[in-house]
Amino acid sequence: MTHQCALLSAVMKKRYCDDVKVGDRFKSEPLRVTEKKLIEFAHKFDPQMFHLSRKSAARTVFKGLIASGWHTAALTMRLFVQTLSFAKGAIGLGVDKLRWPNAVRPGDVLTVETKILGVRLSRSRPRYAIIRLRNVTTNQSGEVVQTMLASAMVRRRLRLRPVTTGRKGTGRVVRGSTRYERMSHSKRTGRKTSP
Amino acid sequence: MTHQCALLSAVMKKRYCDDVKVGDRFKSEPLRVTEKKLIEFAHKFDPQMFHLSRKSAARTVFKGLIASGWHTAALTMRLFVQTLSFAKGAIGLGVDKLRWPNAVRPGDVLTVETKILGVRLSRSRPRYAIIRLRNVTTNQSGEVVQTMLASAMVRRRLRLRPVTTGRKGTGRVVRGSTRYERMSHSKRTGRKTSP
Repeated sequence: MTHQCALLSAVMKKRYCDDVKVGDRFKSEPLRVTEKKLIEFAHKFDPQMFHLSRKSAARTVFKGLIASGWHTAALTMRLFVQTLSFAKGAIGLGVDKLRWPNAVRPGDVLTVETKILGVRLSRSRPRYAIIRLRNVTTNQSGEVVQTMLASAMVRRRLRLRPVTTGRKGTGRVVRGSTRYERMSHSKRTGRKTSP
Repeated sequence: MTHQCALLSAVMKKRYCDDVKVGDRFKSEPLRVTEKKLIEFAHKFDPQMFHLSRKSAARTVFKGLIASGWHTAALTMRLFVQTLSFAKGAIGLGVDKLRWPNAVRPGDVLTVETKILGVRLSRSRPRYAIIRLRNVTTNQSGEVVQTMLASAMVRRRLRLRPVTTGRKGTGRVVRGSTRYERMSHSKRTGRKTSP
């Protein structure tokens, strides 16, 4: 099942930072949280009574099983990765304002909406840009179960420009040719590449 | 293994918010991240090439397998839960400044240090307090692989006081007796219970 997801992700059209802009929104496919997987995650990573079994959870303030917030966060990552499908991946730099306003219960069906808040070039890695985004995870009733702001490093589509050699007929762009050097975005537009 | 952890956690002395104070530090036991578990987590939650296999990861900017940041976060939660072991659990309210300054590689051994930054009473749930904490996760070389600030709701130790009935000999404190009512911390100290 999970291998299928990775495979599906691999054959889907890959995105570069150039393919997203501020204000763009992406909605994931739905994903069901089973009781079995909720409990399995808790035993591995968050062994607290409201996550571990129906019986122990019934005696807590939640009056029943709820998913670990870190399980919701991990499922959100999976839906985000499948939906945005960045070429060479999205390298997480940091997360802020991670909140769980409502509990996730067994059987809940989650979807993630991603909104692009910012895109800027990386100062240290010219092949990459930093995207700033907001992920909102909702259940089948439209209740928000998680919100977060995140920054991730994603690849830029590399553009090539001809190298001036002084010889005629060398100006055409041929991908992969050693005659062409990579253009940095800052050189092309004079746009600020930092911070 | 994970069941053992939950069991160990259950038989350990449980803490209440009253047992921690600002400035307290707690250090977890070490936990080894195996390649198998790193890859298993990635297939389920973060199917990107730098997490999925040695071969695919070798071609990335990381030049080898690294753990998903969400895997590091989940392992940090496990170590935190085992170390602090709050009675009735620690209910996560939110996380800020979650950062991954160095990658986690297969075979790395992680420990978590928790520092208590604040303890205040819950306005909406008098049986609970909100603790503010910082978790720093380091590898076997002392490199920081994750930092975060978090807020969690934890139980207060309920103190009982005698109910004045006007009858002689009813003033002794007996746990569990219906003759005694719960004292709220705010009543005892006049301390501000909000926000």
